[in-house]
Amino acid sequence: MSQYWSKLVHNLDPYVPGEQPKDQRYIKLNTNECPYPPSPNALAAIHAAADERLRLYPDPNADELKDAIADYYNVQRANIFVGNGSDEVLAHVFQGLLKHDAPLLYPDISYSFYPVYANLYQINAQQIPLREDFRVCLGDYAVDNGGIIFPNPNAPTSMALGLDAIEALLQTHAESVVVVDEAYVDFGAQTAIPLIDKYPNLLVVQTFSKSRSLAGLRVGFAVGHPDLITALERVKNSFNSYPLGRMAIAGAAAAMRDKAYFEDTCQKIIATREMTVQSLTEMGFSVLPSAANFVFARPPAGNAESLYLALKQRGVLVRYFNKPRINEYLRITIGTDEEMAAFLSVLAEL
Amino acid sequence: MSQYWSKLVHNLDPYVPGEQPKDQRYIKLNTNECPYPPSPNALAAIHAAADERLRLYPDPNADELKDAIADYYNVQRANIFVGNGSDEVLAHVFQGLLKHDAPLLYPDISYSFYPVYANLYQINAQQIPLREDFRVCLGDYAVDNGGIIFPNPNAPTSMALGLDAIEALLQTHAESVVVVDEAYVDFGAQTAIPLIDKYPNLLVVQTFSKSRSLAGLRVGFAVGHPDLITALERVKNSFNSYPLGRMAIAGAAAAMRDKAYFEDTCQKIIATREMTVQSLTEMGFSVLPSAANFVFARPPAGNAESLYLALKQRGVLVRYFNKPRINEYLRITIGTDEEMAAFLSVLAEL
Repeated sequence: MSQYWSKLVHNLDPYVPGEQPKDQRYIKLNTNECPYPPSPNALAAIHAAADERLRLYPDPNADELKDAIADYYNVQRANIFVGNGSDEVLAHVFQGLLKHDAPLLYPDISYSFYPVYANLYQINAQQIPLREDFRVCLGDYAVDNGGIIFPNPNAPTSMALGLDAIEALLQTHAESVVVVDEAYVDFGAQTAIPLIDKYPNLLVVQTFSKSRSLAGLRVGFAVGHPDLITALERVKNSFNSYPLGRMAIAGAAAAMRDKAYFEDTCQKIIATREMTVQSLTEMGFSVLPSAANFVFARPPAGNAESLYLALKQRGVLVRYFNKPRINEYLRITIGTDEEMAAFLSVLAEL
Repeated sequence: MSQYWSKLVHNLDPYVPGEQPKDQRYIKLNTNECPYPPSPNALAAIHAAADERLRLYPDPNADELKDAIADYYNVQRANIFVGNGSDEVLAHVFQGLLKHDAPLLYPDISYSFYPVYANLYQINAQQIPLREDFRVCLGDYAVDNGGIIFPNPNAPTSMALGLDAIEALLQTHAESVVVVDEAYVDFGAQTAIPLIDKYPNLLVVQTFSKSRSLAGLRVGFAVGHPDLITALERVKNSFNSYPLGRMAIAGAAAAMRDKAYFEDTCQKIIATREMTVQSLTEMGFSVLPSAANFVFARPPAGNAESLYLALKQRGVLVRYFNKPRINEYLRITIGTDEEMAAFLSVLAEL
């Protein structure tokens, strides 16, 4: 608290990321990172870019990266916006596309950064409750609004909507922007990117931090109609001309081009997830149907918090949210087969 | 223009960075980059960080980097804020510390991103004219205000204020934040960082893009009282938990620790600048007294724009601002001795 702060700062309620402890080595199943290394091509591109040219500014438009993403999704460069992690992309989306007189809508149980952005940009927002079974029901969003954003799959519930449900929403909702936050889409859901040509108010946001194993590089992107992208570029160019460094551009572009490695990584995680779900179910956990690289599971006794603490004490980090409706659940990131076997064996002991 | 844009977006007037042409090789004296490569220690640290750990998020607090900066300037970690280039740091400063009812003050001829930020965050701002001789006169800022920001040395004029003038301002001005933007301070001006213990409203902003040859890595920082830093952390943690990737943290920390390399680089640039100023003066240019890694020079005939174009045609890029009062000047970055000799020889031909 200080007389020097802008008024806004006093009322901020910042996001709290998952723990990144430095005191000891944990089996880290708490921040939805990928257990597999990045594509060797991405690492090679990063090393190749890490030379004396770092004295020079990067390409402010990151065209190499935009082109790699556009090629992958068979869209145009003008459909792509890139940023310093999907969190930065989402921040610009909130400021540039989701601030209107009518309320912005998002699920009450969802990515907990949404209310933080709404507060930062003083956006009128309204939370739409998930159904009793934790489903996002897009029919519930048919109210006057200045924008809609939801993750697909949702977090921390891990449950996905089908493209048919998303297209049904778009068909009846042309008046404001619909943002589909696809951070986890590659682990079992369908991307809405093919719909952007048909719906100029659809924006899809993705990240390199999960399925492309590059959380430490900080790259995210958005795909949509060029009018939406132009708004984001205008905000970005009023904030930071060069959000992506030379290595971020080169590394992310190479990762995007290595389709085979990416698909292999996703398949391994999906296989490990199915094994984990089966084991947890056999141990009496209720596990929500997951299309993500994590599962959301209720222990048989509902004692999620004490179980979180006991796991931590035994060197396994998972994520616990002390919030209404979800405080009997744990969010467990899918690691390697070995990590999950170790986790399950600690769990069995407990 | 689109119905989907937030109202704000329609009125943005984004910053335009210096050209980064890809069509041919230029002698690039237009974006104030350092002509020398980064410290070998920085490159080594970047390569060491570019491995499979990139799958993991970086330290959201970038403590390694904060500690390296704190050590260098003999302050505490709590005095340091770091961000994705000093442009991002400045953006958070504008939003978190400089938005008040009374107007924010900055020089009329200065870093042209300031009015862009003021517009982005809808900050009431007032430009204070430079004196006839292009000096910033801090006495002119003794009016009711909600904050003051100025670069030292100023850009694009290259002229520096002494610490005595800055301390005189601080002594009579405790009621709002004073930001000294020291992007170019290492080339001949004095940093105000030693004053932060005495003046809790002083914030100093610096960058790794100029004197530390890391424009392509994207790292900047601010130094000030912990209360000011807390405001910036609150904004940052409402915007992006992880603005700096693993390589940015490791590379910038190593660069900061390599004091000898840094000092050698600065000395070489200063020597080349003095040689350049002498040659330009002999050719009839009026050159403002520079404490930066660039000079601001008026050609004898005042034909700056046509000279800019002619230089570009001959493969030399400098920066021309088509703005009142400075449209007869060129901003010329100091390159290597060889680059400046080539520039001067093209100039002599013209």
